[in-house]
Parts: sequence; C-alpha cells; structure tokens
Amino acid sequence: MQEALFKNEFITVFKEESHIPWLKIFTTEPYKELTDCPKNLRDILYRSIEIVEKEMREYYKPDKINIAMFGNYVPHLHVHIMARFKSDAFFPESMWGKKQREASLVLPDEKIFLEELIKKLHSIVNM
Amino acid sequence: MQEALFKNEFITVFKEESHIPWLKIFTTEPYKELTDCPKNLRDILYRSIEIVEKEMREYYKPDKINIAMFGNYVPHLHVHIMARFKSDAFFPESMWGKKQREASLVLPDEKIFLEELIKKLHSIVNM
Repeated sequence: MQEALFKNEFITVFKEESHIPWLKIFTTEPYKELTDCPKNLRDILYRSIEIVEKEMREYYKPDKINIAMFGNYVPHLHVHIMARFKSDAFFPESMWGKKQREASLVLPDEKIFLEELIKKLHSIVNM
Repeated sequence: MQEALFKNEFITVFKEESHIPWLKIFTTEPYKELTDCPKNLRDILYRSIEIVEKEMREYYKPDKINIAMFGNYVPHLHVHIMARFKSDAFFPESMWGKKQREASLVLPDEKIFLEELIKKLHSIVNM
C-alpha cells in the first residue's frame, strides 16, 4: 500500500504517479458515494478539494484544474485533483482519454508544494 | 444553444445526450475554476450536485455515480454527473475512456426523474 501524504480521521491524501501534479483524496472511513457521507465529512471533503486546487494553481500555474470522482474500479469514495497543462500528454482530453502527444512539461519541484499543502490540510480540522 | 432543464441566477442545468443518465451543471455566471467562485455559489453548486446524485440513485439505481469537472475545451465551470451501470458501454472505464461493449441498458423513462429533480433544485434557493 502506498504511503499517504496526509491522513486524519476524515480524509487520506495520496499522490498519483503521473507526469502532471495529481492528488487523490479518499474518505478515511469507506463510503461508496458522496451522498453516503455525513454532512460534516462532505464539507471537509469540499474544503480539502478547494485547498488542493488553490495550492496547485498558485504553485504550478496550470492551464486548468480537473476534478473527478469515479470509483468504478474502487468503490471507496475518492476525488482526483489534477493540474492540467496545454503541453501535457492528454490535454485537452481528460487524463482518462486518448493520448495527444509526448509531454514536454518542466515543473517546479513538488517538495515545497507538498509541504505547504500538508500544512493547509492540517488547518481544516480547526475550521 | 441547447435549452436548459433548469436555470436560476446561480446554476444552469443541461442534459447530455447519452445512453446513460447524464446531467451537466454550469455556473450561470462564467467562472473558470471552482476556487474562482464566491463561497455562496460553491455551496449552491455542492448542494445541487448532491441533489442530482441523490435523485439519480433513487430513480435509476445505478451501480455507481461519476462526477467530473474538466472544462479543458470549455473553460466555464461545469460539473458532469453520470449514473453508471455495469452494462453501460464504458463501465468500469470513465465515460471519456475506451468503449467496452455495446450497451444493453433498459432504464425507466426520464420524465418523472426530471420533474422531481427540477422541483428539488428550486428548493436550493430557499436554503
């Protein structure tokens, strides 16, 4: 099992190995669908999506953020948050679509991004 | 331009032509990203996603709900909400993935679903 970047009683955050910045937020307790989650957990999930999006936008300056909740293979609620660039391998298709080109992305090191993000995620519990 | 199923000052809802139940919620005022929206509008968007998901689950009994915000082609914030079935043409791939089979879905008529949904969406404004 991959090590989580962040985990508390509500959410668990993983990195997806990809040539783009791509994180996945799981509910720590397993729920199948968004509307199965208690309201408090849904609010924390929305807030954490916003934090990841905001940090990705500030740090990577992507052309677009993509967000997806599928769970057809793994019916444990999770959200994909992806920073998309016009020069990434799939743009403007989704990351589940047809490859468009060999990617030529030059991105800043993820270390500072992840440190800042984890700090911000810790703040959610104190909302 | 396709006629909206529902429109108020916050959100505009369209049907996507597909063999599965698939709706799209746009913000009525154009914003590019989720975190560009004012908090009030984000809250209405989350609540409307939950209403569509809940109505789809109750009416169509899908195997999974899929939710996506891409906007790579149309950078006006919108959310896709799809009722997925093991026998639909793409399952377990996303609707943007590789076709898996010829679909053999038999679904109840959408008329009652849409009427009920629109009633529920009207109630959001009075939250």
